[in-house]
Amino acid sequence: FDYDGPSMKTTVPGPRSQLFVLLLNFVFSQNVGAVNFFCNYEESRGNYLVDVDGNRMLDVYTQISSIPIGYNHPALLKLMTNPNNLSTFVNRPALGILPPENFPDKLTESLLSIAPSGMSRVQTMACGSCSNENAYKAMFIWYRNKERGQSGPSAEDISSCMVNQGPGCPDLSILSFTGAFHGRTLGCLATTHSKVIHKLDVPSFDWPIAPFPRLQYPLEEFSRENAQEEARCLEEVEDLIVKWRQKGKPVAGIVIEPIQAEGGDNHASADFFIRLRRIAAKHGCAFHVDEVQTGGGCTGKFWAHEHWGSDDPADIVSFSKKLLTGGYYHKEPYRIFNTWMGDPSKNLFLCEVLNVIRRENLLEEVARSGKALINGLYELQAQYPGLLSRARGQGTFCAIDVRDDATRDKILVKTRDKGVILGGCGDRSIRFRPALVFKEYHVHLFLNIFNDVLTQF
Amino acid sequence: FDYDGPSMKTTVPGPRSQLFVLLLNFVFSQNVGAVNFFCNYEESRGNYLVDVDGNRMLDVYTQISSIPIGYNHPALLKLMTNPNNLSTFVNRPALGILPPENFPDKLTESLLSIAPSGMSRVQTMACGSCSNENAYKAMFIWYRNKERGQSGPSAEDISSCMVNQGPGCPDLSILSFTGAFHGRTLGCLATTHSKVIHKLDVPSFDWPIAPFPRLQYPLEEFSRENAQEEARCLEEVEDLIVKWRQKGKPVAGIVIEPIQAEGGDNHASADFFIRLRRIAAKHGCAFHVDEVQTGGGCTGKFWAHEHWGSDDPADIVSFSKKLLTGGYYHKEPYRIFNTWMGDPSKNLFLCEVLNVIRRENLLEEVARSGKALINGLYELQAQYPGLLSRARGQGTFCAIDVRDDATRDKILVKTRDKGVILGGCGDRSIRFRPALVFKEYHVHLFLNIFNDVLTQF
Ligand code: FES
Repeated sequence: FDYDGPSMKTTVPGPRSQLFVLLLNFVFSQNVGAVNFFCNYEESRGNYLVDVDGNRMLDVYTQISSIPIGYNHPALLKLMTNPNNLSTFVNRPALGILPPENFPDKLTESLLSIAPSGMSRVQTMACGSCSNENAYKAMFIWYRNKERGQSGPSAEDISSCMVNQGPGCPDLSILSFTGAFHGRTLGCLATTHSKVIHKLDVPSFDWPIAPFPRLQYPLEEFSRENAQEEARCLEEVEDLIVKWRQKGKPVAGIVIEPIQAEGGDNHASADFFIRLRRIAAKHGCAFHVDEVQTGGGCTGKFWAHEHWGSDDPADIVSFSKKLLTGGYYHKEPYRIFNTWMGDPSKNLFLCEVLNVIRRENLLEEVARSGKALINGLYELQAQYPGLLSRARGQGTFCAIDVRDDATRDKILVKTRDKGVILGGCGDRSIRFRPALVFKEYHVHLFLNIFNDVLTQF
Repeated sequence: FDYDGPSMKTTVPGPRSQLFVLLLNFVFSQNVGAVNFFCNYEESRGNYLVDVDGNRMLDVYTQISSIPIGYNHPALLKLMTNPNNLSTFVNRPALGILPPENFPDKLTESLLSIAPSGMSRVQTMACGSCSNENAYKAMFIWYRNKERGQSGPSAEDISSCMVNQGPGCPDLSILSFTGAFHGRTLGCLATTHSKVIHKLDVPSFDWPIAPFPRLQYPLEEFSRENAQEEARCLEEVEDLIVKWRQKGKPVAGIVIEPIQAEGGDNHASADFFIRLRRIAAKHGCAFHVDEVQTGGGCTGKFWAHEHWGSDDPADIVSFSKKLLTGGYYHKEPYRIFNTWMGDPSKNLFLCEVLNVIRRENLLEEVARSGKALINGLYELQAQYPGLLSRARGQGTFCAIDVRDDATRDKILVKTRDKGVILGGCGDRSIRFRPALVFKEYHVHLFLNIFNDVLTQF
């Protein structure tokens, strides 16, 4: 089913892609600054993305990590041709008030079958941003309920909230980390600190931001230094919680990614997360693990937090991207609602994706490919010590740093012209985000091409 | 294709719906407080929603106004069986970086073909909330660019924004109206003032809230009183703009619904909106018309703001629901981005929906059914003066007030048991939100059943 390798006809973007960009830009006045090239999704297959100039590229970026089992997987195509499924696509229900008959079944088969340890409730949402926004709201409501105890909201709570004022709209905060990315809507954005361009000119909340550990890689070789750095960050977290409480803006929740993705693929140890969770509990803050980018199998386990080995990893776990639907797992019911509450047609796809993951043992495959990938990256950074450094990863969720951002960008373009799509992240990292069907064979194919490119630098 | 009338087997929710609710509630620990009943979407057709107990109901609410041309429209089913469309459903692209080949075509055919007067740019999004959130961001960025003039962001802008502080995260505000609903994510929620339950316990921004005119209906009979009320509100808007500028939180944009939907179906005159737009321009604020609920034809024109007769109605117009995809029209390009930027499969449906609207002259049909509906409501409120009042509407986007909320809720339940689904809004209003295929014939069917119910009160 997969193609047997890249096949390049032009540089990328080729002439047809360039034409389409002009068209969008001038004729339709669209803002197309971020467009890389135009794709032919019909012809794309498995790990290969085909563009409108007929270039076929090995995709190690997969639409910012959101294609779980490759392009046009036969199982998903088959699902589309099943007439019983048609109405799910054609009639999008307001899931919170008028769910379809098969909703409980589909939930059991899909999201509940992969629920994180200790969590039996799930709330579906449509994307990563509304998943996190609503998870934050859930934490605020939980915190205020706890504060109020038995008594319900006061008359003052009720009247003040309608005009955006306290105590009804309380001065609560969410603690996030430097380098974090949790989305771009205003609530999420107040916890996002990965790039200036995301934040500039947008009003925000005065919420505490703790340092995310800056570790040295490979982690095993620097365990003493790294443990010190993590201890420093944890201390800062506690300080900030106390400080913000004194400021009158108590921390209702802490949000963190198991691996900071957009911020440059920053890892931390299991011990760090487990201690952080304990600090949250000690100070009465909810603990929210954002698995929007790490969830879905790419780390070799279904959830990245499974690597921590804790049976009570979090109070809230949010997801999207590779899971096709967004949402979050939680422990308590809250009054969260919107029109669509997700999209059952995405649930249908997710069921099938999970079937494929199980049937084809894709988590084991990812562990295997991941090992080959990280070992290959170690070798390359040994071979090009001035150019590459800090190779790191879990499963195929890997990254490596380049000398500087200009060189990084050049490498990305040259690699693409040789038929491999990679992504950048952080200041000067390259990130690898293949689909779960990226096999050892693809790793070697990629490493050969990458090596060819690197020799030119 | 349509069924020929409601057909009720049980009260609603019937035994199977109740069983499913229990299942979700106890077995899956889901929060199902808002669930009305479970639906059989396969069997639903046109204006009729069928539930899992085999009850077939005339749907005058259409999933909170988000089913444009009825259930299982043959044109949409056909689109699903076209093999050329399969890959659009199966491979969801990151539209902002890797758009599909047919993206410019589909945009022209769909969203650009219905662009509001004076607007040639559109940004697709996935739902009403991200449409509004990003529209707000666009207004903030526009406002700051204007303030900065030729010079780019300062070093202080850049460093401060990463830690949520000014001047990089400026203290700008969006002016909204009492009773407004613009969504539930934190930015949107700061401009939403329809219900306590949406806002309670969620931190917010200190942004100005102007009174939305409380008019008397029918509008024609109270034009003098209504003009006075509107003048009062406009004066207050100007006062608030000045006051918030003095507070150091200048108003970057004004957001308003052409008809306040969730807030109780509140109308205002064309003159009000045109003056408001002028006030916005005078004070250098962007003017954002939120057509998430009113857009798509239900008022008898494609956009509700077309009733104002202005050729420069707004700086930004946002949409979602009946348009299946979310997004906003605008005049200037901004740096707005997220992973998915909407979903091309929804665009595909929208193209077909627009074809059907044109082919079947649905806007004219809506105008005709709307006239029958409002006249019917006028008659009913004359017949039941103590019970009903304030009948109002544009197209089929109609509402009527009931004596009190308890009676309103009882009427909704009794009407449903007789086979008609209605929705509530505001404190004690009933809102009518049929699909565009709701014909005069359906209006009379509904009025008869409604009348039967009202005689019991
Ligand atoms: S905010 Fe998630 S889909 Fe709109």
